[in-house]
Amino acid sequence: MSRFEVDYIVTVAKNQSAETLAAEICLEQTVEIPEDCIPSHVREKGLPGKIERIAKEETSDNRYLITISYLSGIADSSVSQFLNTLFGNISLKNNIRINGIRLGNEFSSLFPGPLYGVSGIRQALNVYDRPLVCTALKPAGLSSSELAAMAYAFAKGGADIIKDDHGISNQRYSRFDERIVRVQNAVREANAKYGTSTIYAPMVNDEPSVMLKQLDLCARNGIKGVLAAPSLIGYGAFAEIRRNHEFILIAHPALAGTFFYSPEHGATPAFFLGTLFRLLGADISIFPNSGGRFLFSPSDCDSLCDSLRNPLNALKAAFPAPAGGMRISNIPEMYDRYGKDTVFIIGGNLLQISSDLSESAGMFLSAVSAVSGKSETA
Amino acid sequence: MSRFEVDYIVTVAKNQSAETLAAEICLEQTVEIPEDCIPSHVREKGLPGKIERIAKEETSDNRYLITISYLSGIADSSVSQFLNTLFGNISLKNNIRINGIRLGNEFSSLFPGPLYGVSGIRQALNVYDRPLVCTALKPAGLSSSELAAMAYAFAKGGADIIKDDHGISNQRYSRFDERIVRVQNAVREANAKYGTSTIYAPMVNDEPSVMLKQLDLCARNGIKGVLAAPSLIGYGAFAEIRRNHEFILIAHPALAGTFFYSPEHGATPAFFLGTLFRLLGADISIFPNSGGRFLFSPSDCDSLCDSLRNPLNALKAAFPAPAGGMRISNIPEMYDRYGKDTVFIIGGNLLQISSDLSESAGMFLSAVSAVSGKSETA
Repeated sequence: MSRFEVDYIVTVAKNQSAETLAAEICLEQTVEIPEDCIPSHVREKGLPGKIERIAKEETSDNRYLITISYLSGIADSSVSQFLNTLFGNISLKNNIRINGIRLGNEFSSLFPGPLYGVSGIRQALNVYDRPLVCTALKPAGLSSSELAAMAYAFAKGGADIIKDDHGISNQRYSRFDERIVRVQNAVREANAKYGTSTIYAPMVNDEPSVMLKQLDLCARNGIKGVLAAPSLIGYGAFAEIRRNHEFILIAHPALAGTFFYSPEHGATPAFFLGTLFRLLGADISIFPNSGGRFLFSPSDCDSLCDSLRNPLNALKAAFPAPAGGMRISNIPEMYDRYGKDTVFIIGGNLLQISSDLSESAGMFLSAVSAVSGKSETA
Repeated sequence: MSRFEVDYIVTVAKNQSAETLAAEICLEQTVEIPEDCIPSHVREKGLPGKIERIAKEETSDNRYLITISYLSGIADSSVSQFLNTLFGNISLKNNIRINGIRLGNEFSSLFPGPLYGVSGIRQALNVYDRPLVCTALKPAGLSSSELAAMAYAFAKGGADIIKDDHGISNQRYSRFDERIVRVQNAVREANAKYGTSTIYAPMVNDEPSVMLKQLDLCARNGIKGVLAAPSLIGYGAFAEIRRNHEFILIAHPALAGTFFYSPEHGATPAFFLGTLFRLLGADISIFPNSGGRFLFSPSDCDSLCDSLRNPLNALKAAFPAPAGGMRISNIPEMYDRYGKDTVFIIGGNLLQISSDLSESAGMFLSAVSAVSGKSETA
């Protein structure tokens, strides 16, 4: 009867002990009944969570790292049941933050991880020696043909990946079915003409039954990647894209932010946008770069990169993609911070630096190639 | 070109104005590019969010209620795109809390609301004059036949609704397909024998493609209700249960808690578990009762009840279901607080008060009938 471990950082109140809080979590997340009501055969099966370790944080008076193990069989039937076990009810409590997990091989079919990962995407793009260059089709409100023209220019300029802005999905001014055909045709045409290998990744953000048809349409049109936000479409829906299709899968953090607001409750960015999204199958995980419009600290970003790239069972490494207000001018600093196995995303700034978007994309690629000490591959 | 309005409570920092923050939200949630890059025809279409009102909270130095309107067409293509527009990227920012929305009729097909609502459920149960009595099958780890025996006893005792514990879904010790048939048979048998009208609502918590099969199986077995957590299975997946099936739909708040941790960021319980879940189609919305194991205040709970019951476009009223550590002994106080149109859920306490669960359920029903000034309907 195998078990898996979850590390929580807990911040205890004055009248509370870490042991009591840990014991509450053990029951709340599993049997959800008072200790004295647990049938003995349920206890013997190992259903209640078990406190494995409690360690006080050295730098804090009231913060502890507690490790609780759960029976794998309570959590491995679905992605949503896994998350339910980790944090379902205790999300409604206070001062509990998921810091990490350790899973055994019994989770390998639930969580196959990235289909391509860093190595597979590099192979698909034939780009090995520099960060990847990603641009975004925006703003929402442009027509499908305007977005297709934009994509053509970005591909001509040598962008590796062109994604929809995450706010563009299936609106009346650019229906999904129409847009993805036009944009993909434009990218294909540019690739043929300029010898580029640009990949287009549309945003899928619809109800499950609609999304399934959209994914089929993408596959039929030779589209190689998709962008999706697990916290919007559902973590299980995201995992099913990985399991049932063959797209390069880019995860967007939209709606996940309430997990990171407090250092005392929710989950670390490294766990949520790193480990969890990689487990769900993200080949690339987009996150808000420190110093941009959002609030992650430099060390949040570093830990997140580690959780995407470092060994994790037999899973492939995934690309971190720092984004949010990035500019061509800070590529050198970004490269120093994040290194080669990174996807750089520049959106708005490309629209600012030239009205010829192929020129903007070309400058982006040149700047990335320059810092990597390599000439352009395109 | 119709628009809808969102009210956010924002808490501004010393060096920040409410106007600047509101203007940032307007761009971040729509076009997501710098002001100077917005094409004029996109601006003319009304794509950028628009500040409608800014009002300082009287009791606070730095808190404002801001109202922003968005073009309905940017948000009404799917539930997940709606949430993306309300809070996708700004979830990753700070000090922004959704307080409410006003939608026009253009959202009526996206959000049909409860299929049954208070009136429809009362009709299905033939119970008009008291709160509804709901019990839970638990703990996780029991076999399907043990859970079926428990359900039989609860039905015999006169419970109106028997739900799976939200942590019981499709585990190896009680597979969904096996459990729901056994439990439903047990409830059907008890109903036939004791003249009760008990409804069983299993927890659905699987990946979208699996869940679809489970829902079909439920329908084929005459199951009338289901329990699901929108934040676990996905908000769109939950909405599709409402749109494509005919179950009494019970919403569980699991994993939603990070929205409520801070009074400064996320969403009010009244908006999220009230308005939003009702829009998605919840007939009953479970929430953590104040004074229990969780953290909602009495006024949080009151506002939540209002948002479920008060007029909202043409939507049916939904039942609030306060839960979490409720006991038979506090039914009078619960009745005073929540009134008649409420679902009372008692789980663990029923296991504590008698080893004969039909007796426990009977005591629960009697206590509810007594405070309502009515004799038992069963």
